[in-house]
Amino acid sequence: MSASDSEQLDTLMSVLRERVAQRLDTLLAPGSEPAPRLLEAMRYSVLGGGKRLRPILVYAAGEALGASRRDLDTPAAAVELIHAYSLVHDDLPGMDDDDLRRGRPTCHRAFDEATALLAGDALQTLAFEALAASGQPRAAAMVARLAGGAGHAGMAGGQALDLAAVGQQLDVEALMQIHHHKTGALIEASLSLGALAAPEVSEAQLTALARYGRAVGLAFQIQDDILDVTASTEVLGKTQGADALRDKPTYPALLGLDEAQRRARGLLDDALAALAVLGERGTLLAALARYVIERRH
Amino acid sequence: MSASDSEQLDTLMSVLRERVAQRLDTLLAPGSEPAPRLLEAMRYSVLGGGKRLRPILVYAAGEALGASRRDLDTPAAAVELIHAYSLVHDDLPGMDDDDLRRGRPTCHRAFDEATALLAGDALQTLAFEALAASGQPRAAAMVARLAGGAGHAGMAGGQALDLAAVGQQLDVEALMQIHHHKTGALIEASLSLGALAAPEVSEAQLTALARYGRAVGLAFQIQDDILDVTASTEVLGKTQGADALRDKPTYPALLGLDEAQRRARGLLDDALAALAVLGERGTLLAALARYVIERRH
Repeated sequence: MSASDSEQLDTLMSVLRERVAQRLDTLLAPGSEPAPRLLEAMRYSVLGGGKRLRPILVYAAGEALGASRRDLDTPAAAVELIHAYSLVHDDLPGMDDDDLRRGRPTCHRAFDEATALLAGDALQTLAFEALAASGQPRAAAMVARLAGGAGHAGMAGGQALDLAAVGQQLDVEALMQIHHHKTGALIEASLSLGALAAPEVSEAQLTALARYGRAVGLAFQIQDDILDVTASTEVLGKTQGADALRDKPTYPALLGLDEAQRRARGLLDDALAALAVLGERGTLLAALARYVIERRH
Repeated sequence: MSASDSEQLDTLMSVLRERVAQRLDTLLAPGSEPAPRLLEAMRYSVLGGGKRLRPILVYAAGEALGASRRDLDTPAAAVELIHAYSLVHDDLPGMDDDDLRRGRPTCHRAFDEATALLAGDALQTLAFEALAASGQPRAAAMVARLAGGAGHAGMAGGQALDLAAVGQQLDVEALMQIHHHKTGALIEASLSLGALAAPEVSEAQLTALARYGRAVGLAFQIQDDILDVTASTEVLGKTQGADALRDKPTYPALLGLDEAQRRARGLLDDALAALAVLGERGTLLAALARYVIERRH
């Protein structure tokens, strides 16, 4: 990727981040809710920045298949609401017990444990409410797809596997199984939601997006593990070395740093190969796959 | 209600409980989920009995408006999944910290805290997935309605209000405001979901169901508070006097037992009056309203 391509991508990602942040802000607008502090905790957890990778993938997949950006705003926001809920619950004392997220106190630190629990719950609910009320012709299919990625057969199942793995001796296959569910399932769902907002989509395109999503999702997690070893707490916005401290298995621990990096690059190649069927329209998705591997935080 | 009417209602309620239990069992069938123990915790939390009042209200409202029982199975199960998720999270140490539910250890006691958190999360997700994948013509509207009742403007908002009220001096109006959200919103959504499964429904019918739901929801909560004072732990299947111990405001505490009982009966009258527009078809809903006030556990 040339310097100017990279700048173009940065600009586009900023534009999309801003779009989804506006949609999230609207969905979380104060109104007649009975408990304003609960809404405040929800806003704190979802409007406090973040990479917005999943919403950006919704836009990229949808636009590659001819959906309008406007039709993608709510699906993009819904995916981010699910992601945000999972982070709030992941950080709770009964789970990872983290104090810091995106450079700020975690939700239960900034508010309290019960409020964080309910805020996570209500963020999940809002994801499905927004999607269902979006007026999208395939809204029900979108809800089913997002729930499939988020539920016990997807993300939540992966989190349960992940918890069971703490302190265990895992091989790389077992670790990939965890991440395929914990991170990959929601990333794949993001791509599907983009596709479901498009006027039409072929089986070949859906298969390509699924393969791309699978590769990017895993590459994203490997890169996360690598950054946990190599980046500083300041750059990460969360505690550096947290995985190692918690005795969580990671790719660098299992494979060594070099081999982990090699695997991430192999997944990038696979993601790019999957996009061939989209031709020119896959350019943004390709750039995003490179971004996932090359990011520094 | 005569003895034979009462027996007829008991029989019908048993039939409907069995139907929704079967649908829940199917929705939670073991398959290729990555973390079998998470599914086990979900099954433990939702298949362990319960009054199934909300699903029964879905059936009653739907059948009153001409929906088939088969079309109501998934909406009924979805409402119960939301109810079950809320109980699992309510019982967690960060919330009410309860050890006993329906006469058995709470989910986090039978499993562990992280698993209970994820089980609640995934039960909520499954509710929306099941509804969205039901093939119902108005599936998207059902998801939006159920999410509206469950989210920060409904049940979750009511739980946040409830937590904020512990140890506070509340008047009856404030307590009603809590319960209108915490319990009433999901009961109202149950009635709406039944109506949305019907071939057609008029504004007058929807208004009647909403008024009925509001009255029954509040009456249900008042009766719960009354039973917390008057029934034994064995009959309740949860710790008797738990509200008082926790210094939670209750209707009997604010109004005295007699006045609380008088209010519950007033709400019953209001619920029955609302059903006038349904004529004969409202018979089951009427019987259920009576059951809510007259139940002993």
